[in-house]
Amino acid sequence: MIRGLRKIEPYTAGVQPAKEKMIKLNTNENAYGASPKVHEALASFDADRLRKYSTLDQADLRFALADNLQVRPEQLMIANGSDDVLSIAFLAFFNNDEPVLFPDLTYGFYKVWADLYGVNYHEVPLAEDFTIQTEDYLADNGGIILTNPNAPTGIYKPLAEIEAILKANQDTVVIVDEAYINFGGQSAIPLLDKYDNLVITRTFSKDAALAGLRVGYAIANEALIAVMNAVKHSINPYSVDLLAEKLARAAVEDWAYYQVNAKKIQKTRSWFSEQLLRRGFDVLPSQANFVLAKPNDLAADKLFKGLEARNIYVRYFPKVERIKDYLRISIGKQEEMKAVIKAIEEIQR
Amino acid sequence: MIRGLRKIEPYTAGVQPAKEKMIKLNTNENAYGASPKVHEALASFDADRLRKYSTLDQADLRFALADNLQVRPEQLMIANGSDDVLSIAFLAFFNNDEPVLFPDLTYGFYKVWADLYGVNYHEVPLAEDFTIQTEDYLADNGGIILTNPNAPTGIYKPLAEIEAILKANQDTVVIVDEAYINFGGQSAIPLLDKYDNLVITRTFSKDAALAGLRVGYAIANEALIAVMNAVKHSINPYSVDLLAEKLARAAVEDWAYYQVNAKKIQKTRSWFSEQLLRRGFDVLPSQANFVLAKPNDLAADKLFKGLEARNIYVRYFPKVERIKDYLRISIGKQEEMKAVIKAIEEIQR
Repeated sequence: MIRGLRKIEPYTAGVQPAKEKMIKLNTNENAYGASPKVHEALASFDADRLRKYSTLDQADLRFALADNLQVRPEQLMIANGSDDVLSIAFLAFFNNDEPVLFPDLTYGFYKVWADLYGVNYHEVPLAEDFTIQTEDYLADNGGIILTNPNAPTGIYKPLAEIEAILKANQDTVVIVDEAYINFGGQSAIPLLDKYDNLVITRTFSKDAALAGLRVGYAIANEALIAVMNAVKHSINPYSVDLLAEKLARAAVEDWAYYQVNAKKIQKTRSWFSEQLLRRGFDVLPSQANFVLAKPNDLAADKLFKGLEARNIYVRYFPKVERIKDYLRISIGKQEEMKAVIKAIEEIQR
Repeated sequence: MIRGLRKIEPYTAGVQPAKEKMIKLNTNENAYGASPKVHEALASFDADRLRKYSTLDQADLRFALADNLQVRPEQLMIANGSDDVLSIAFLAFFNNDEPVLFPDLTYGFYKVWADLYGVNYHEVPLAEDFTIQTEDYLADNGGIILTNPNAPTGIYKPLAEIEAILKANQDTVVIVDEAYINFGGQSAIPLLDKYDNLVITRTFSKDAALAGLRVGYAIANEALIAVMNAVKHSINPYSVDLLAEKLARAAVEDWAYYQVNAKKIQKTRSWFSEQLLRRGFDVLPSQANFVLAKPNDLAADKLFKGLEARNIYVRYFPKVERIKDYLRISIGKQEEMKAVIKAIEEIQR
């Protein structure tokens, strides 16, 4: 019998089926591909360069990003996807006895990191309409983390409300996870100058269509970024690979391309939400690249299986009581969403 | 004043200078480049595929590796470089009250992970001749981790001695970090069938010349791999990116190419060690792609600075008492090492 083995309940990621003809709408990937500059950057990369370690500070990418976001390069820390950024943040900032607060319905990974690292936490129930109530985040706490727009609801919390939470909690870190911010809503970046306790996290996996490359980042004041860097360099200093840095930088330098696609996704989201409403679904108002919707005239699991039988993959959370009757559907290309509506009609029949 | 911020002393990685004309021998990178199949795999990759997440289980890479190593795919866990693998292992296996044992002179990161995750540890002094003494690892412990060949000494510990340690500690996990094993020495892989407590860690950064891509792996029995996977999926499930998996797989499938280069490096290491001995250095007997050497007729810091002034970067550990008079020099191409010898002669004059 071997002693000392960790017992743990890991995060359950969406499945990654790899069928030839499928419509994959279960992990909020971008419907569109890489920009021409990303293709060029890949084509011009010499594999022999990979014999050397990647950079420790991602200076090239940070300078490009800083320019794009209108912040200072010293306000940025880059890591291996926003999961890595958030994992680092939990270790870096949540070392208090009081509980860290986050909604009962949000990114399922927060609870997993808290459990893994022994962080005390309290899950605050969302209101009946699935919104985050500002007053719930004004009590004593060891830190706060909110996704905005929230997942899996897609609901955006107005910036003035985020600011009220930052203002009331200036002695603990408040993380705003903006994985989906570029599909609607307003970033908290303008609040950075006013609130030293604000940490914003972002990813290249959604708006930048680079989920397969693993790049994410944090934006905060220099002092908090220094703490995150110390933790990063105590775990895996080279976690961002050379190719990932180069391609992410190309994406930043071609950002207009991704903004056009984000607009297309927003337009498709409106169309798709409207189609679902017409077919009797409840649809939460989403500012993300997915919608959470409840089919009222058939069971969620029946719809989930019916879609799966047609090679359409969406996300279903049967174990999460409050949304067990809902499906989370990523917004794909317009023709993909038309195919989903057609499939729903068949299953409803 | 913001509460809950982590205070931590991170690992200090070797600097990554990026000069045009330099000889970089400070982070044990491979002197040679990528195999033709790796170049092909990169050239044929479509950047649009990156919009989707990478795989969760790296099945393609694991099957290729399993075939190459003659183990089962279920005995392998892949992560973002062996730093990531080792960080996961510390969380997965070292949850005992007794101290984890490792040498006082070994990979400097073990101490950093132990401190970060609150793991109790004891640094066991190497013998005067810098060897790991088997009898020091027979006492009660919460786990053991050894690098073999050890770093920064390069000294290989014979497999029979590793087996004695495994045999005496069957109720705790013994990690053998084989980052440098393919430059000499014999792998502990044959011991896996006999010892359920053995975990071997490996990297693509040294022998496979893919430091810039971040791929490492663990080899162990299925039960221990399952614990590591649970931890991996509780931190950052997608840490191995799509391109990294694809290129690492191409490297495995073209392994003869890397074996030829490892032989060249071994030959250059012999030649270089001999040259240093002739010039009055103490040189530890290395089975890795570096040597630890002490210049006896000039100070280590003078030699370090003299080399740096000639754009030759090696590793110097002035804060590590036992080796403050030594330099660790990676083994580059034969012509690079000739240039180093020429520079040493100039500095010695």
